[in-house]
Amino acid sequence: MTDIRWDEGREARTGFPEVIFGKSKSIEQLQRLFREGEGLRLATQLDAAQREALRGLAEVDELSRTAVRNPRPERELPPVGILTGGTGDIPVAEEARAVLRALGHPVRTFFDVGVAGLHRMQGVLPELRECAVLIVCAGMEGALPSVVAGLVDAPVIAVPTSVGTGVSEGGRVALHAMLASCSPGIAVVNIDSGFGAAAMAVKTVNKLHRP
Amino acid sequence: MTDIRWDEGREARTGFPEVIFGKSKSIEQLQRLFREGEGLRLATQLDAAQREALRGLAEVDELSRTAVRNPRPERELPPVGILTGGTGDIPVAEEARAVLRALGHPVRTFFDVGVAGLHRMQGVLPELRECAVLIVCAGMEGALPSVVAGLVDAPVIAVPTSVGTGVSEGGRVALHAMLASCSPGIAVVNIDSGFGAAAMAVKTVNKLHRP
Amino acid sequence: MTDIRWDEGREARTGFPEVIFGKSKSIEQLQRLFREGEGLRLATQLDAAQREALRGLAEVDELSRTAVRNPRPERELPPVGILTGGTGDIPVAEEARAVLRALGHPVRTFFDVGVAGLHRMQGVLPELRECAVLIVCAGMEGALPSVVAGLVDAPVIAVPTSVGTGVSEGGRVALHAMLASCSPGIAVVNIDSGFGAAAMAVKTVNKLHRP
Amino acid sequence: MTDIRWDEGREARTGFPEVIFGKSKSIEQLQRLFREGEGLRLATQLDAAQREALRGLAEVDELSRTAVRNPRPERELPPVGILTGGTGDIPVAEEARAVLRALGHPVRTFFDVGVAGLHRMQGVLPELRECAVLIVCAGMEGALPSVVAGLVDAPVIAVPTSVGTGVSEGGRVALHAMLASCSPGIAVVNIDSGFGAAAMAVKTVNKLHRP
Amino acid sequence: MTDIRWDEGREARTGFPEVIFGKSKSIEQLQRLFREGEGLRLATQLDAAQREALRGLAEVDELSRTAVRNPRPERELPPVGILTGGTGDIPVAEEARAVLRALGHPVRTFFDVGVAGLHRMQGVLPELRECAVLIVCAGMEGALPSVVAGLVDAPVIAVPTSVGTGVSEGGRVALHAMLASCSPGIAVVNIDSGFGAAAMAVKTVNKLHRP
Amino acid sequence: MTDIRWDEGREARTGFPEVIFGKSKSIEQLQRLFREGEGLRLATQLDAAQREALRGLAEVDELSRTAVRNPRPERELPPVGILTGGTGDIPVAEEARAVLRALGHPVRTFFDVGVAGLHRMQGVLPELRECAVLIVCAGMEGALPSVVAGLVDAPVIAVPTSVGTGVSEGGRVALHAMLASCSPGIAVVNIDSGFGAAAMAVKTVNKLHRP
Amino acid sequence: MTDIRWDEGREARTGFPEVIFGKSKSIEQLQRLFREGEGLRLATQLDAAQREALRGLAEVDELSRTAVRNPRPERELPPVGILTGGTGDIPVAEEARAVLRALGHPVRTFFDVGVAGLHRMQGVLPELRECAVLIVCAGMEGALPSVVAGLVDAPVIAVPTSVGTGVSEGGRVALHAMLASCSPGIAVVNIDSGFGAAAMAVKTVNKLHRP
Amino acid sequence: MTDIRWDEGREARTGFPEVIFGKSKSIEQLQRLFREGEGLRLATQLDAAQREALRGLAEVDELSRTAVRNPRPERELPPVGILTGGTGDIPVAEEARAVLRALGHPVRTFFDVGVAGLHRMQGVLPELRECAVLIVCAGMEGALPSVVAGLVDAPVIAVPTSVGTGVSEGGRVALHAMLASCSPGIAVVNIDSGFGAAAMAVKTVNKLHRP
Repeated sequence: MTDIRWDEGREARTGFPEVIFGKSKSIEQLQRLFREGEGLRLATQLDAAQREALRGLAEVDELSRTAVRNPRPERELPPVGILTGGTGDIPVAEEARAVLRALGHPVRTFFDVGVAGLHRMQGVLPELRECAVLIVCAGMEGALPSVVAGLVDAPVIAVPTSVGTGVSEGGRVALHAMLASCSPGIAVVNIDSGFGAAAMAVKTVNKLHRP
Repeated sequence: MTDIRWDEGREARTGFPEVIFGKSKSIEQLQRLFREGEGLRLATQLDAAQREALRGLAEVDELSRTAVRNPRPERELPPVGILTGGTGDIPVAEEARAVLRALGHPVRTFFDVGVAGLHRMQGVLPELRECAVLIVCAGMEGALPSVVAGLVDAPVIAVPTSVGTGVSEGGRVALHAMLASCSPGIAVVNIDSGFGAAAMAVKTVNKLHRP
Repeated sequence: MTDIRWDEGREARTGFPEVIFGKSKSIEQLQRLFREGEGLRLATQLDAAQREALRGLAEVDELSRTAVRNPRPERELPPVGILTGGTGDIPVAEEARAVLRALGHPVRTFFDVGVAGLHRMQGVLPELRECAVLIVCAGMEGALPSVVAGLVDAPVIAVPTSVGTGVSEGGRVALHAMLASCSPGIAVVNIDSGFGAAAMAVKTVNKLHRP
Repeated sequence: MTDIRWDEGREARTGFPEVIFGKSKSIEQLQRLFREGEGLRLATQLDAAQREALRGLAEVDELSRTAVRNPRPERELPPVGILTGGTGDIPVAEEARAVLRALGHPVRTFFDVGVAGLHRMQGVLPELRECAVLIVCAGMEGALPSVVAGLVDAPVIAVPTSVGTGVSEGGRVALHAMLASCSPGIAVVNIDSGFGAAAMAVKTVNKLHRP
Repeated sequence: MTDIRWDEGREARTGFPEVIFGKSKSIEQLQRLFREGEGLRLATQLDAAQREALRGLAEVDELSRTAVRNPRPERELPPVGILTGGTGDIPVAEEARAVLRALGHPVRTFFDVGVAGLHRMQGVLPELRECAVLIVCAGMEGALPSVVAGLVDAPVIAVPTSVGTGVSEGGRVALHAMLASCSPGIAVVNIDSGFGAAAMAVKTVNKLHRP
Repeated sequence: MTDIRWDEGREARTGFPEVIFGKSKSIEQLQRLFREGEGLRLATQLDAAQREALRGLAEVDELSRTAVRNPRPERELPPVGILTGGTGDIPVAEEARAVLRALGHPVRTFFDVGVAGLHRMQGVLPELRECAVLIVCAGMEGALPSVVAGLVDAPVIAVPTSVGTGVSEGGRVALHAMLASCSPGIAVVNIDSGFGAAAMAVKTVNKLHRP
Repeated sequence: MTDIRWDEGREARTGFPEVIFGKSKSIEQLQRLFREGEGLRLATQLDAAQREALRGLAEVDELSRTAVRNPRPERELPPVGILTGGTGDIPVAEEARAVLRALGHPVRTFFDVGVAGLHRMQGVLPELRECAVLIVCAGMEGALPSVVAGLVDAPVIAVPTSVGTGVSEGGRVALHAMLASCSPGIAVVNIDSGFGAAAMAVKTVNKLHRP
Repeated sequence: MTDIRWDEGREARTGFPEVIFGKSKSIEQLQRLFREGEGLRLATQLDAAQREALRGLAEVDELSRTAVRNPRPERELPPVGILTGGTGDIPVAEEARAVLRALGHPVRTFFDVGVAGLHRMQGVLPELRECAVLIVCAGMEGALPSVVAGLVDAPVIAVPTSVGTGVSEGGRVALHAMLASCSPGIAVVNIDSGFGAAAMAVKTVNKLHRP
């Protein structure tokens, strides 16, 4: 395959397999990648035409904009929790879920639990405490990770989303708020990167969990 | 007084008197302003030398960096509540308190009630509900106004402070987070502007309160 | 309704009901929300398809991009004044008006009274002074709130709009100018947020007004 | 003089002589420049040590931070008006005045006429209309040029100043507001550049004025 | 005409008539404005549909995106020169030309004379020196005004254009370079604002020129 | 202790104790906090005077700018590795080490292993693979986390440092580079926040490690 | 050709011929430029319609978006190496290749050798060392030039690309990372400017190479 | 030497030796580095105390803030030219000169030849053409590289300097202008990085020059 140097040894080396970033791939490249090799193939950030082109070659999901071939069976691992502040953050959360599931990690979701109505998040605290790692997706002022990290003992991987208007459009405000959080135990990934949060969670659980 | 055009009619016209902004005044100008005229004189943002120079001419306060001559007696008005997220925000809160007191408004303060330990703020909710207006000062990720406005019925005047490190140094992150808040009923003033928040509160209470 | 956690207690708790933010909702979600429950339903930031889908279920307004079901009858309250600097700011002003009306607040409007021709604004000063709160919408250099707050005794809720070209495109210049205003008695909401200004006005009038 | 290539022909070529920018000059360089040659020598942006070192060699002014040797006599020209919004803008205005005077241009000043009290500026309108060009210095929200250009027929050279706090500290807000002005007939120079405004005024009057 | 407050007295007051900014006007509003009143009507920043709608009511120009009704006859005035660095800047230059012509000012143009080939600009120096004012439009690094102001005695009104790629896309680099110019005698208008530059030139020539 | 609301329950609630942020504390406040209570007390970001004032009350470390009273004994846990790109990043790394040690976590350090000489980092790869979590501190272009995460299976907590000149001064470039990394398995904390990285590592190891 | 001043002497003067920047040219202008004159004609940044219009007049390349007429024959020169971090950077690399080939310079390419899998780049080190100059194209965190310059003795011309998401979208992060590199021997061109890198390489090889 | 991993093989590997960046080194570290090893030692960015501490161990230069031990003798190579726009840029130019000289490269300097007086630069054109590479240092609007690259055939390494006021303070405007230049054959290094420009020049001449 011209111009693509597939990194076969990545999972052995780093504990996380090479994943196809859809944005910079042609449909031909994508189809070949899903026809070649064996075992797991996972692609993210696929646009509508790319998703259409992969039907039949992979399990395609519209909301998370992913495609997966030969997902790993779910393993006996502590679950990763995924929270969102609002409904607009759900596509980002679904990308994280798709990556985790493809790699066999159990997931629990807690959507629309933002800080404008704290009782919604406080109502799920016992379940949050059962998760090994929490992925918290929020746009606008990005306050949810601060509140969550002040209440639970799991590490928080914060995902700023581009949901917002005016100053918060594009996700910079949420990103900066999460980095500046006054609650210890938060680390942050790139804007809208459900993928990046899932990768961090996968490497964390795989490296640290002993059954 | 050369070059200063004192706006005598400002209080009659706008409901808020002219206040001296210390930063652009010489010591001579300040001393003359506090010797001339009669009634209330209020100066903010005074540096150490300016404060020293006004002792004897006014009541000088170190923490709020203000000086006041002939403050108005406290009036029968509903109180303005002032909250801070941390201890670093207190000088900004004190500037707001000094302005409100000089103009005769009762004040209640609730300091160090930030979102990393929500129980601190939730413990004072009944008292917050007795205030007509809430001034909420916070730096870092600036999440406190969102949480407060989601729990009480008073309008929130949010004051971003320059307290923070890294991305939040200088107060831009808190400012943007407050503007982007997902909780309705928040309006924002300039960074570190305890004065601006107090002015908004004064005009609001004076215009709207009917005993 | 999957994934949406409707905050029924918000109005009792905060004095302002939950309002539907159209941007992150599907048409199915919107239609269900307007079919379910009873009493007031209000949605903002609706695009053309969403507005079309809500006809018959709600009163839809094109200019303000809102839909309302069961608006509250107008109450005996002091009016909220809404000003715009130019004609381009009117959609933002109309969003504020729609929210205020849905909640029963009387409104007066003063459009196209920007600072390039001051006599237009000065001509309506007596009417401005009858309003309890002023919502001032302006784009470009955002100077109108400064001028208004220097002439009237009502608190000013400033709304920067994204109207402008070159450096002012998107509304950041107007936002910053309003925050930096030399006139006391101004607080600011997010860019283009007629909704945010109306919410602040509603909570202010409801909390403070005693007939 | 090593490393300095004095541009003797600049005034003949461009109508404006070479002026010494103090910031990048050593005291030795400055003293030599004021001892050499003949006729007008003008230096701006001098710090305290540089000003001290030039006493005896030139007329040194503390407020404008300038030094001038052999200023030109005042010529029969229409005056240039210089306005400031507040007292903090006066040093910038004085730099403009020093440059204009050194080159023989009559100047009128109107200080502390900012938009928080419009009557101050409106009181000097007849005098403003007698000026050929207006230099308007303002910090904070930088609204004064918009208001002035909406009321007089002289071209406005706007000078944003670094006076301000929070978002307006450093002068970017005033700069952008002036560029975005809704009033036609304004052009802008660099932040705090009284020198740049004066140079524009000098070239404008010299090129266009016919007695 | 609802919502538009036409400023009839603007030309008498400021020496420059009200001009219609197309961006915030509906086609109905534009057509009415061109049917009403008498004398000069000028609109800028018209999109294709707006221009189409004004054919028959005004002289419409595609390149400058303007429409004019009853332009003033050319007056006996010194010409305004308009330069561009490249061919991409020409639409901005044409907007300036359209405004100047509508108001009766003679214009000379010098296009594609950027600094990558200095001989092109140096070849027209004698003609540049005959102009009363120079409007210099440039994108990318925006260096042309610096070079021109270092060679001629006319005041330079610099217009940064949004022509550029990478860091210079949108015109901020050219804007800042023009403000930071080391050549005295330059003032700057908003990005792509041929209109703003023409307005400054018109007010300058009208106020200062004595035949 | 006026104005400080100590959050005694934080460790039980979140797995991480309250730590004193030195920047917003007076010397009196610090001394009282170190005299009161019992067990672990940890303060970070102490300036020279604060450190001096705590000698005798705590173990004070100059390089990390921390003070600790009653550190926890080292526990049987997998080590946390701390890397720096250069020598300038060491103070940030030392802050992380001080926090980890105070809480009983074993630490290994790998300093000055930046990407300009890759062999330095590649030489310690076997040791890096023995760490449970890697904290990677880098300034300038912040490339080290990308390279490390592409070679090892431990999750990487990236700490951008303010080390740099020109565009990278202050740490924004390193921050953004780390967020934008093409290597999966990286999450980022605030600029210079050795504390934040250590807190994330502590919560991760405590929550996930089963001996 | 109205409005275009073709700079015939540019190659004699600067060693690099005038190249047509497609973005600001009409199809008529492009076609005339390719019909006129003789010898090499090269255009870059052509959109689909422009490319279509030039078929038959020039050799048009889709991927690099260039058109060339009468390319120079390949000369006996040391090759220029072109690297990319990922597949998304290839169009930028192809623009550089097209310019170099049109001017007769040999080129070698090394695509998809980014830092997430270092072995890919280390595998081509011997070939990299045979190139006179290296053009390194990378988006996202832009770390590849740092790693390359730390391993080879050729000067590196770094090209940040706009490939990326979240904070790195648009290429600013890669640009800044390249400027801030800790590896000596790197200079940077504008975002996505394969053309600019090729021009620097051409002038470098032509000026310095002696066979 | 604890914590410093000296990269002995760097010159053999990359053609450029390890150079000591003074900013992140203690005086003890610097003195040890200059006492140890043999042959060339070069340190840049030394503050006054560091320079004082190295006297006797190295040749210390105040203006360039460098120290050198055992510089290489001047080699038979084509000279590198160094230009500055103004006198304020000279310290940056001197840093470049010190690095080039230490490594045995001949240098020619052309200071204070900025674009406000083009004749100064045009007067040295024949000498510029004799240089193999040109390092062009400029602050403010950073236009000098554009003009130079439009007139000579040598590649231009542009160094933006932090010289400037208002918008150009800190060097970002010059940096962006240089990246956006319309003249081909320019590549840019970090702000104030005379060192970075010299390193690029050294690697370029060493790799390409054949006597």
